[in-house]
Formats: sequence, C-alpha cells, structure tokens
Amino acid sequence: MSDGSNGGVDAPDGEGAPDVNTLIMEATYRALCEHGYAELSVSHIAAEFEKSKSLLYYHYDSKDDLLAGFLRFAGDHFLAMLDEAEREADSPVDRVRSFVDIYLGAELDEEMAEAQRAMIDLRAQAVAEPRFREEFTRIDRHLRERLATALADGVEAGVVDDAVDPEPTATWLLSALSGAMLQRHTADYDVVTPVRTLLHGYVDHYAVNADSDGE
Amino acid sequence: MSDGSNGGVDAPDGEGAPDVNTLIMEATYRALCEHGYAELSVSHIAAEFEKSKSLLYYHYDSKDDLLAGFLRFAGDHFLAMLDEAEREADSPVDRVRSFVDIYLGAELDEEMAEAQRAMIDLRAQAVAEPRFREEFTRIDRHLRERLATALADGVEAGVVDDAVDPEPTATWLLSALSGAMLQRHTADYDVVTPVRTLLHGYVDHYAVNADSDGE
Repeated sequence: MSDGSNGGVDAPDGEGAPDVNTLIMEATYRALCEHGYAELSVSHIAAEFEKSKSLLYYHYDSKDDLLAGFLRFAGDHFLAMLDEAEREADSPVDRVRSFVDIYLGAELDEEMAEAQRAMIDLRAQAVAEPRFREEFTRIDRHLRERLATALADGVEAGVVDDAVDPEPTATWLLSALSGAMLQRHTADYDVVTPVRTLLHGYVDHYAVNADSDGE
Repeated sequence: MSDGSNGGVDAPDGEGAPDVNTLIMEATYRALCEHGYAELSVSHIAAEFEKSKSLLYYHYDSKDDLLAGFLRFAGDHFLAMLDEAEREADSPVDRVRSFVDIYLGAELDEEMAEAQRAMIDLRAQAVAEPRFREEFTRIDRHLRERLATALADGVEAGVVDDAVDPEPTATWLLSALSGAMLQRHTADYDVVTPVRTLLHGYVDHYAVNADSDGE
C-alpha cells in the first residue's frame, strides 16, 4: 500500500520515491474512501500513513486541513489527466469531446468511480467549509478555462460555429457534466447515456465540417 | 418555531395544526440546517422537537431513518411547489421555463438557499446510504417526468420543435440544473447567469412561434 500505485492520486509523474506529502495525501484519500467525510477522523488518516505519525501532525492541524490539502493535490492530478487527454486529441472539437468522455465514461473503472464518489462527498462540505470552497472554485475555474479555450480555438480555426460563445458555453457544459456525475453516483437510473449522447450531439451540431474531424 | 411557518418544508396545504410527523420533519430540517449531516445527531433533532421526545423515538430509530423520512417529506413539498408553478404557466414552453427559474432563481431568498444547501448535504450521502439514494431516485424520476411531459405536450401542441426528444432532453436539462445548483453553493463564481441564460436560449431555440408564447 505504500508503493504509490494506489488510489488514483499518485504524483502525476511518479518519478522515484513519493515525497512525504504525497504519502500523507494518499493516506488521506484511502481513509476518506473507507470512512466517508462524516465519519472520518485524523486518527483514521494516521492509521493509513505508514511513516511516523508525528510527520503527519507536523504538517497538518486537523481533518479539514488534511482534506483541503488533499483537494489541492487531487485537483492538480485531475487537471494533469485532462491535459494529457487534451494533448492526445486531434482538434479543438476532439478536446471538448474528450472532456465529456472523461467525466461521463460509459464504463467507469472502480478507481475512477471511487475518486468521483470522494469528490462528491467533499464537494457537499464546500457549502460550509471555506477552504474546500476555495479549492473547488480553483478547480472549476481551470476546467471552465480549458473548455472555453478549446471552444475559442475551434471558433478561431473555423471548426466550431461562431454562434458559440466560449465562456458561458463552457460554464454550462461543466454544469451538465457535474450534475450528471452527481446523479450517476446518488440515484439509480441511467443518466450517463442520455447526457453523453446529447452533449456529443451538441458538439456535433456546432462543429463545422464535423465529417473531417480528426484531421 | 412551532407555528409551521418555518423552514420551507411545511405541509403543502397548511390546513389546521400540523401533525406529529410534520413537526418531527420540521425539527429534523432545523437541526440539519444548523449542524450539517456530518455533525448531526438524533439528540440535536430531539432538541428541536417541542413535543414529547418519546414520540420522536417511537417513530424513528436513527439519524438516517429520520433523514430518509425527511427526504420523502421535503421531496413531496418540492414537487408540490413545482406543480403549482406549472399550473400558473400559460404553455408547455412556459412550464419548462418556470422549472429553470425555480432551480436557478437569480435572487435566491435565504429560505430557498438553506433548503438547497441541505439537499446538497444529503445528496452527497446518497452515495453510500441506500435509503437516501432511493428517495433521490424517486425525486429525480418525478422531475424528469414533469420536464419530459411538458416537452412532449409542447411537441404535440406544435409549440416545441419535434426534433426535441422529450425523455433524454429532460434528463439532460435536469443534470444541467442540478450541476449549476451544486456549483452555486460550493464555489465562488457566477454559474447561475450563464446557465440560466443558455437554458432559456435553448428553450427559445426549440420553441415554435416563440414570439406568441403565453397565448
């Protein structure tokens, strides 16, 4: 459990031994997944941390302090994952499509499902915890910027209809993706198929020369 | 606090004295708003309940039991509120618009904001608590059915473009509304204006003879 391969929140590059903070964040993540926010205590996190507990208490004061640090860490990890998917996309339109697919994958592996459930748990706490709110504000800003940039690049390249206003469209796409992800994990009906289909249909509708995408 | 005027979760009709279950649900709501799910205990709820505590313990076994009951109660209340707004709408298209405006009101009064925050808190718990999940599945099903029915009525009456497929469109609209509501309460940026504007724009786009709506 200390080899850094666990939990979907490894350091993005994974070079050499993970640093102490990475190990603390991985322990936080494992404890959060096991206990959920409501039941989680610092001692649960300490129990998952295989180095000296004093290191953990030296760096972090409280459960919410650890979790705010974790949100920063996990947000950076998620943004790095999106960057990689964007780099593999062939066109601005494909960058938007890859975004939709990462959020609403038809088949969600257990690692990604667990990460999404943990994020939902912490997101709800952001109603009352300013540090969580600050991290989600930051993550959402990056996500909206990436989507808006892909759309603006598409308009500029003439592959997205210039009726699309990138910034509000990015905000609205992120709302639909966030809502569908929340519903997927908190209710028993298929929200993923219709939402993914309609969002791809929306992208196709505004893609110019959609037939030749990928080139 | 026991006059039934508190909390946005009164019995829909408010006739006569509220019954014991209504008083228990109002106490549950007040305690949830004050403490949040993570800190909430049955004794917090009992402290808000002004009748004999034994009545409360007679009807409900645990915190999650009380909250599952509350979700049923609050869901019915919210659905009754939507029914009323739908009855006041002049056309199927206006029914969809009123739905958007109830979810994403530009000015949210404190009572409605508190109710939305409480729902977000419980929704996140539905990841792990099957009874909460069951209630959210039920509420979402009713919401999707209302939206789909309004859209289908609009198509049938010739006021909504028949390119709109009511059921997946309803699912997708509900995702966008749920996501925007979540973001509004958990991050610091204006999600409401762009999402409401684009959803109204979407409705206008597919409304046939939109100029003459309302008559």
